[in-house]
Amino acid sequence: MSGKRKKIIAVIGAGQPSPEEANTAEEVGRELARQGATLICGGLGGIMEAACRGASSEGGLTIGILPGDNAKMANPYVQVPIVTGMGYARNVVVVKSAQAVIAVGGSYGTLSEIAHALQNNIPVIGLNTWSLSKNSKQDNSIILADNPIDAVAKALNLAEKQLPIE
Amino acid sequence: MSGKRKKIIAVIGAGQPSPEEANTAEEVGRELARQGATLICGGLGGIMEAACRGASSEGGLTIGILPGDNAKMANPYVQVPIVTGMGYARNVVVVKSAQAVIAVGGSYGTLSEIAHALQNNIPVIGLNTWSLSKNSKQDNSIILADNPIDAVAKALNLAEKQLPIE
Amino acid sequence: MSGKRKKIIAVIGAGQPSPEEANTAEEVGRELARQGATLICGGLGGIMEAACRGASSEGGLTIGILPGDNAKMANPYVQVPIVTGMGYARNVVVVKSAQAVIAVGGSYGTLSEIAHALQNNIPVIGLNTWSLSKNSKQDNSIILADNPIDAVAKALNLAEKQLPIE
Amino acid sequence: MSGKRKKIIAVIGAGQPSPEEANTAEEVGRELARQGATLICGGLGGIMEAACRGASSEGGLTIGILPGDNAKMANPYVQVPIVTGMGYARNVVVVKSAQAVIAVGGSYGTLSEIAHALQNNIPVIGLNTWSLSKNSKQDNSIILADNPIDAVAKALNLAEKQLPIE
Repeated sequence: MSGKRKKIIAVIGAGQPSPEEANTAEEVGRELARQGATLICGGLGGIMEAACRGASSEGGLTIGILPGDNAKMANPYVQVPIVTGMGYARNVVVVKSAQAVIAVGGSYGTLSEIAHALQNNIPVIGLNTWSLSKNSKQDNSIILADNPIDAVAKALNLAEKQLPIE
Repeated sequence: MSGKRKKIIAVIGAGQPSPEEANTAEEVGRELARQGATLICGGLGGIMEAACRGASSEGGLTIGILPGDNAKMANPYVQVPIVTGMGYARNVVVVKSAQAVIAVGGSYGTLSEIAHALQNNIPVIGLNTWSLSKNSKQDNSIILADNPIDAVAKALNLAEKQLPIE
Repeated sequence: MSGKRKKIIAVIGAGQPSPEEANTAEEVGRELARQGATLICGGLGGIMEAACRGASSEGGLTIGILPGDNAKMANPYVQVPIVTGMGYARNVVVVKSAQAVIAVGGSYGTLSEIAHALQNNIPVIGLNTWSLSKNSKQDNSIILADNPIDAVAKALNLAEKQLPIE
Repeated sequence: MSGKRKKIIAVIGAGQPSPEEANTAEEVGRELARQGATLICGGLGGIMEAACRGASSEGGLTIGILPGDNAKMANPYVQVPIVTGMGYARNVVVVKSAQAVIAVGGSYGTLSEIAHALQNNIPVIGLNTWSLSKNSKQDNSIILADNPIDAVAKALNLAEKQLPIE
């Protein structure tokens, strides 16, 4: 039965993105839905709303993991609002529930999600997002993508390897 | 758009219920699905699995809010496993994401969910579950139901009043 | 070295207690400090503040596990404010950090803490707090105390058995 | 009364640091204690243990915010173990409870803590830790320190500005 579960891909990014970033996220959402994946995100505005709008327009399922106490805070394209009341600790839940993460731009909240994902060995695909280095040594853990279609293809391919073996 | 969201009802109860309690939970799940509601639960076995099995058999959507670090721990009838890694703090998320809660039997974990729900003004419908009193005064906040059909009817009626006004 | 750690006892109860309950909590705090125990609580007003005031007046250490985002919300007798930003999910942290819990009166938040403690096999001593029953069968897990001195004696005795064996 | 609260400084870094990093963390801990600050950390080994050992050797107070379910997991120099059972979501609590954060080296867990701190406008002082950039633009939010004494001086100076105004 769990073999029938859909892949779940997280889309993360800023609440106040540039118009280009929002377009990118919307196309990511559309492509995820076309490929039959479920979208999970932080449930609020900006990148999260754009991705949910894209997924909804193609009939995909959208899950929003909300930081606050009320489902009303979810963007209108979230079909299943999960109310945590846990503030930014909910970032951990967004990435741990996914088999791969696509980061579009983003600020420190997005960076925390990237870090939590990498800490949990969940692959992160980046579209114009953070670059990391330590002691002048570049960290190449974030997998770069050229465009939304490429990002979704990479995410779904890597997600395959994360799924529980039956 | 959020006006189109389905009602979300939590079903809570023990991981090791009696056969009668499991049958009750399965019928609660079936009836929730027949009435078009989404089922949310703690994602593990016992009452949670029975309710998800019932809902799945009628084509309903099932969400499991898991305490551990791995979606593999979800029962096979959970369609959307949410991985919190937060242990029993996830109990708060189960009830806050619902507009009403149905408790079937249950041990201390269930009691903590009942308490978190009542603290958040989320209605709790009980089927052979905990009774509460303080200083010899009975607390009647848990709404008693006669059977699964009655419990679901009461939950959906009370959930109506919890939904965000558009 | 950890053999030198002090016992940590949680005091839980309502934010808006009766004057009698507040006096009881203050005396519990005083006695905990006299006996050399550290007090942990939810960090806010009412029972939490009364207990911290009592403990502080006898030179005891007080820890407040705050639900919100700001240490300013702590009552003035909290010496170490822990800022969780996790809302009532912090109730789990209050009880799990203690080797025993003393409940004074209390509403649903207190009930959730009692339930989380019992679920984790952490002893709960009650002073005019909740009574629990299931299917008409009384649950006697909450240990009744006659007065603050008795409650602290019972808590410290039971805490002894919870401490890690070195 | 809260005017008498000590400053709380978080020390974050890897569980398996290099010997040089551990020495650095121990000196940070010593200096924090000498300056009268309370040390908060994730409570486990490596950088966390080295910092607590340093603080303890100078009579400072040490708080460990543990990810697991048991105080036994705390390093022996943690005086107050806080048991969250929330896994890496506890990283949020470590930084939110501090008025400034000192990062020594570190892996992805440390990066998540840096990100959560910056998201909450809590200053981060770095000793050979992560560097951040986005879209080829360097992010200079992490304040570089030359050595442990410099790091503590900067942390305490910035913490001053974070304290609640009475």
